Amino acid sequence: MPHISLPEGLPGITSGFAFRPETAKPMRELAEVLLRGANTLTSAEREMIATLVSDRNDCHFCQASHRAAAAHHLGGNYDVVDAVKRDFDSAPVSPKLKALMAIAAKVQESGRNVTASDVERARAAGATDVEIHDAVLIAAAFSMFNRYVDGLATFTPRDEAAYDQMGQRMAKEGYVRRNA
Amino acid sequence: MPHISLPEGLPGITSGFAFRPETAKPMRELAEVLLRGANTLTSAEREMIATLVSDRNDCHFCQASHRAAAAHHLGGNYDVVDAVKRDFDSAPVSPKLKALMAIAAKVQESGRNVTASDVERARAAGATDVEIHDAVLIAAAFSMFNRYVDGLATFTPRDEAAYDQMGQRMAKEGYVRRNA
Repeated sequence: MPHISLPEGLPGITSGFAFRPETAKPMRELAEVLLRGANTLTSAEREMIATLVSDRNDCHFCQASHRAAAAHHLGGNYDVVDAVKRDFDSAPVSPKLKALMAIAAKVQESGRNVTASDVERARAAGATDVEIHDAVLIAAAFSMFNRYVDGLATFTPRDEAAYDQMGQRMAKEGYVRRNA
Repeated sequence: MPHISLPEGLPGITSGFAFRPETAKPMRELAEVLLRGANTLTSAEREMIATLVSDRNDCHFCQASHRAAAAHHLGGNYDVVDAVKRDFDSAPVSPKLKALMAIAAKVQESGRNVTASDVERARAAGATDVEIHDAVLIAAAFSMFNRYVDGLATFTPRDEAAYDQMGQRMAKEGYVRRNA
């Protein structure tokens, strides 16, 4: 049961967003620009970073929904994102994305854990400053989203099909609802 | 030295904001509504929650600047915010704020650490659902801001007078710059 009286029938973060539209607006906009804005990283790559961080924060709602969003950016195939969750260093993703994920994994613990050699590895693999910046900020932002979702004890669906639909909508329509 | 080529001469988060205005906009707006928007918690109370979380995340820039903002909402007096940093449970703040700080301190670790009895304590001390929501989200948001500042290794001034001026500006003018 949620810790406060959140609107019923809404899963995860959407109940917090409905409860407090004033804070929902910038949070939705941040997700939109980070995960779907113009970028040399694909949305699938960015959703996989979000999934990795959410999984490490043990936030089931965020992990499952962004896993599904990543899969739907890849034609509905969950294999790559699941390989990333298991062990990103052996997953079938580019060396650049692996290096950015290593940075994101450090940021999930603490921003202070990122070292110059983590950044050097990313740069050697071809990462730009904006890509390094965005990997850091996606990991930081999901450290917020995850804590928000679990700190309020929002409703976490256990039906995996619900996440597949949610991810499809997130991949297709994004995070800024015109009518919300 | 910052991990990426951030604009020089800008301290802490302001260099990340200048580097990437697209993400700065919603981040600034979120800080503004959380710390200075209409609320039954005073800005001083909210800035003290932000300071507590930033201190526990060992983010010197955020801790020192929001400490100064809290002090400037209290006429420039640092005593209360420093007592909160030392031990909020014995600080000269209301039982309600102590209970909200206890929730924020749990969120700093993980959203999953917040218990029903933490929330019950806050409610018994008079906290509303919106106040509990905002304590959770301020702690979650600073878990992001702190990781962003340190994950990029932004420039951290060591001159404490710089933070006093910064905090005065934050308290007076807020987080959404018209010309930035």
